[in-house]
Amino acid sequence: MENKQNIAEILCVGTELLLGDIVNTNAAFLSRELAALGFAVYHHSVVGDNPARLRDALELSLSRSDLVVMSGGLGPTKDDLTKETVASYFGLELEMREDCLEEIRSYFARTGRVMSENNAKQAMIPRGARVLTNRYGTAPAIAISEQGKTVIMLPGPPVELIPIFREEVIPYLRERGGETIFSRNVNIFGMGESAVAQKLDRLLCESQNPTVAPYCKEGEVRLRVTARAENETVAAEMCDRVVEQILQSEVGQFVYGIDADSMEHVLVDKLHEHRLTLSAAESCTGGLIAKRITDIAGCSDVFFGGCVTYTNEVKQKLVGVSAQTLAAHGAVSSETAIEMARGVRARTGSDIGISATGIAGPGGGTDETPVGTVYLGISTKDGEGYRKLSLSSRRSREFIRIVAATNAYDMVIKYITLGKI
Amino acid sequence: MENKQNIAEILCVGTELLLGDIVNTNAAFLSRELAALGFAVYHHSVVGDNPARLRDALELSLSRSDLVVMSGGLGPTKDDLTKETVASYFGLELEMREDCLEEIRSYFARTGRVMSENNAKQAMIPRGARVLTNRYGTAPAIAISEQGKTVIMLPGPPVELIPIFREEVIPYLRERGGETIFSRNVNIFGMGESAVAQKLDRLLCESQNPTVAPYCKEGEVRLRVTARAENETVAAEMCDRVVEQILQSEVGQFVYGIDADSMEHVLVDKLHEHRLTLSAAESCTGGLIAKRITDIAGCSDVFFGGCVTYTNEVKQKLVGVSAQTLAAHGAVSSETAIEMARGVRARTGSDIGISATGIAGPGGGTDETPVGTVYLGISTKDGEGYRKLSLSSRRSREFIRIVAATNAYDMVIKYITLGKI
Repeated sequence: MENKQNIAEILCVGTELLLGDIVNTNAAFLSRELAALGFAVYHHSVVGDNPARLRDALELSLSRSDLVVMSGGLGPTKDDLTKETVASYFGLELEMREDCLEEIRSYFARTGRVMSENNAKQAMIPRGARVLTNRYGTAPAIAISEQGKTVIMLPGPPVELIPIFREEVIPYLRERGGETIFSRNVNIFGMGESAVAQKLDRLLCESQNPTVAPYCKEGEVRLRVTARAENETVAAEMCDRVVEQILQSEVGQFVYGIDADSMEHVLVDKLHEHRLTLSAAESCTGGLIAKRITDIAGCSDVFFGGCVTYTNEVKQKLVGVSAQTLAAHGAVSSETAIEMARGVRARTGSDIGISATGIAGPGGGTDETPVGTVYLGISTKDGEGYRKLSLSSRRSREFIRIVAATNAYDMVIKYITLGKI
Repeated sequence: MENKQNIAEILCVGTELLLGDIVNTNAAFLSRELAALGFAVYHHSVVGDNPARLRDALELSLSRSDLVVMSGGLGPTKDDLTKETVASYFGLELEMREDCLEEIRSYFARTGRVMSENNAKQAMIPRGARVLTNRYGTAPAIAISEQGKTVIMLPGPPVELIPIFREEVIPYLRERGGETIFSRNVNIFGMGESAVAQKLDRLLCESQNPTVAPYCKEGEVRLRVTARAENETVAAEMCDRVVEQILQSEVGQFVYGIDADSMEHVLVDKLHEHRLTLSAAESCTGGLIAKRITDIAGCSDVFFGGCVTYTNEVKQKLVGVSAQTLAAHGAVSSETAIEMARGVRARTGSDIGISATGIAGPGGGTDETPVGTVYLGISTKDGEGYRKLSLSSRRSREFIRIVAATNAYDMVIKYITLGKI
């Protein structure tokens, strides 16, 4: 049986979440942080700004877990009820805290805004609660520890919640002590989820500590290896032994990273490491290859940019694909892909040029070149090459574009690390 | 009291959600769709792949709502337990459905992949359940309607869940009958949420049928107008009267579309309508301007492509920004933005060129040019111009890039519709 002290759950409050107006990124952030602190999170819940439902949800959460982390409902309006509901659950009165009021006043002074009367409501704090200072907004975060249960209330906006968690909540929770949980992610590309599951059947089904859980996103599979131990060093060693087993298995050759954020992160790291530069010429991906790389701050040392050549004419004008190639082989061909990669490499002066040309659909497919056909080209000082993808024509345009871009990254990584073209 | 028949809730299954490895975008998507169908959503819950907790969560959800939409846990591995848990809750046996097995086989044949043995498990369906065909993956979606309760099980990957919901679930739920709900979205750009709320205070607070609800995404505001009536024609007329009121208000001049999917959709429509062509030169947006346009199938008639000029050298090489301009004004300047737009227009031969150059952060800001500064350029036969954005330096890189791209689209739309540069 697990110790309930190590179980935490997340309760988010906000009608905007229930309407789907915003995506609950707080729950994902809090989950990652709590896992890193050694808490097992078994439930996320979302309720609206409704006192009865909020109270029910809080009661349920506290019956299951000793730590409940809440977000939202700490604003200045009458809709915001989190503090009131939690205080009433524990039978605590709200009292005006002069130090919090002062903090709020000084926040408004710093940001040059006028404080409205209802902001004073935000300085009302349940008696005996711990205030976790919010330097990023007006709502103080609050921790209540009563009757063996802890409730942490955080403001909803991620620009406030994230830094408060890191600066105030982590030190607060570390004071509580306990077991540590440690995870590693194994990033796999080029082998499907069921194949991975089959090859690693015993590891996935039988491992208890560490556990191994697979999940997939467009064209990729990740295995999460999670160990519990008395401290991080021991837990990390336990994970690393399992990671080693995975690397030694038939799945190993498809592992592109350990704890990698994404394939494009690995690509940018490899380019930095080998002091190589890259550019891209994109047809069907229409800027996605460049966009995902430039999502990464600091990529400009290794990524020069490139061209989006969405029409045949522009393929000729911007990256010098020859009219003969287009006439003889068509825009969706290995020949065009290679000329695009060659052209963008020459025109930007980068070490490596990559390209994508294909049919992302839903229209535009033919019998010979159905939707889902993509040619990826690569041009380097060591030679040129291409990869042909035949994705299902029933896949969405978005899926086809994402998988095409990921394959382009994979080609560059394989060239850099294995010299393979 | 509300009719419980109109209450739905969302139950997502997946350890990867509880670990924070992925963000629960499904809950937001399903919430929006269910609201549009007339369901009130009061709870989101997430549980892991654990049979006891999954069963408890299902029981709780069904005690609160007559419709529960589930996502995740339909995969081929032993971890995937959603179907088994729901079937056992209703006392239904699982049986092999030959038609589903055939679908799965043909899916593998189509995608040229090898079907592994455990994929056959996905064709086991609770007796009497309705299969909702999945053309996008191997897990059939399933609807069970028993004892006055409906449970819909959808595969977790959004690339499958979204199209299945639209193609299969909406018609299925519509069969359930009752009142019709009709919505229109009013798309607003250039006026903040609080300003919109202030100008339309009475409409937002007092309207009951139709209701008017605002929500915002990066730099945009949408007003959702929703009417209930005996049939769609009547409900649509009720909505249209309110939309007309909004258009006649001070907010009207900031409305860029009604039921528009996005600003880029409106842009592509306007380009088609006026037979104009566009290209883009991107620095800080790094391909995002092109990527969002090329998300739209059929944009190639009006969008030629362009260049991602992520370094100063490439700005000179690919779009001919002069060394003097870069030296005198810097890469982040109105002069560079205009030369980029001019260059990409000339080199691609498009009617209109747009550009973006700025500091998306988190690094790279200076006192004169802080993070969040973006210059957007436009070049046309009628002249050239620029727009300067000074976004908050506390905004994320992602936010700054999205808002920059949206502003670029807005500039082109304003030029096309109003002749404004």
